[in-house]
Amino acid sequence: MTELQEMTKALISFRDERDWKQFHNSKDLAIAINSEASELLDLFLWKEKEDFDLDKLKEELADIFAFCLLLAEKHNLNVRDIVLDKIKLNGEKYPVDKSKGTAKKYTDL
Amino acid sequence: MTELQEMTKALISFRDERDWKQFHNSKDLAIAINSEASELLDLFLWKEKEDFDLDKLKEELADIFAFCLLLAEKHNLNVRDIVLDKIKLNGEKYPVDKSKGTAKKYTDL
Amino acid sequence: MTELQEMTKALISFRDERDWKQFHNSKDLAIAINSEASELLDLFLWKEKEDFDLDKLKEELADIFAFCLLLAEKHNLNVRDIVLDKIKLNGEKYPVDKSKGTAKKYTDL
Amino acid sequence: MTELQEMTKALISFRDERDWKQFHNSKDLAIAINSEASELLDLFLWKEKEDFDLDKLKEELADIFAFCLLLAEKHNLNVRDIVLDKIKLNGEKYPVDKSKGTAKKYTDL
Repeated sequence: MTELQEMTKALISFRDERDWKQFHNSKDLAIAINSEASELLDLFLWKEKEDFDLDKLKEELADIFAFCLLLAEKHNLNVRDIVLDKIKLNGEKYPVDKSKGTAKKYTDL
Repeated sequence: MTELQEMTKALISFRDERDWKQFHNSKDLAIAINSEASELLDLFLWKEKEDFDLDKLKEELADIFAFCLLLAEKHNLNVRDIVLDKIKLNGEKYPVDKSKGTAKKYTDL
Repeated sequence: MTELQEMTKALISFRDERDWKQFHNSKDLAIAINSEASELLDLFLWKEKEDFDLDKLKEELADIFAFCLLLAEKHNLNVRDIVLDKIKLNGEKYPVDKSKGTAKKYTDL
Repeated sequence: MTELQEMTKALISFRDERDWKQFHNSKDLAIAINSEASELLDLFLWKEKEDFDLDKLKEELADIFAFCLLLAEKHNLNVRDIVLDKIKLNGEKYPVDKSKGTAKKYTDL
């Protein structure tokens, strides 16, 4: 069992013990991911770039991963494959010679 | 090399080829995660719960994973460990007997 | 007619000319507000605190106001009243003597 | 004094009594708007479209208005003007004949 499978299995067990599958439609899972992402960002509100509590960051980041893994599992997506595929796509949007050293969006390159 | 390591390595290569490490402070990575999470949610705006484009969902979900993996790597976090630790913590916030079959927040249980 | 009424009237006209009221349930209006708020934040991604395009900021901020006004109108809320009421509530959460000069959240004061 | 001016004045007083202007740079105000928008959306998580607590909705909506008004004031923006200008712009992106009765994004019309 890979780490991704191990995490997903633990998340599914947690969900099913609480009979929560009924709530986990795709739209609400997307809202949950946004909610957790916002809690992560809250750690940095009114603060400098590296001024945050590492333990809280671990927890909020874990929550985002958790709902992302549940949404991936719901649609039988292989996380490794979609991430590597997207890196390839992003390579076309951001060719090295045009994007090196600049944070510009691909639409502005 | 595990899948998590493989994805992280590919993301770091992509970043370093473009000399983008300079932009990847923790606060902006948290903003990037929120931005990608919002693009995922946009797929569901004005739509029913399961009415979405699977190819776009794959791409947006992959982008969220990507920035989450980069933030984890920046702070030497083991994604498997933080996720399994958080599931344990959530188990204390949401005991099975109180949370079974209800979507209430732990503060309202 | 006050400015708030004028803006709301213009937004309702715009909506009704396009027969969009059918899409404007409360949950999706809340998603729309989040989507526009994220577009505003995108203007600052990988950038310094005051490094942004003012014309784009005007547009994104206007979009957030627009969906907030539509949600308020949907529930017959008086925007002036709910804002002044909330300032009073926040005054209790953040008493001047405890919160002066600190950006701490009220739960940490 | 218009309602917009009255709300803005009350917000500035609240801010200045607590010496918080120092924290209110544009980027963090944009993060604060996102954070409050996310709290609004949280009211709908795992719930049906009109299943929410009206008192909480008033509070969260008021918080979004508050930070939007503060960001507008910071840049001397006339809220009425930017909203009416944006409605005009949106009218060009969404012509009535193409957008009537459809929730499609302008890029897909």
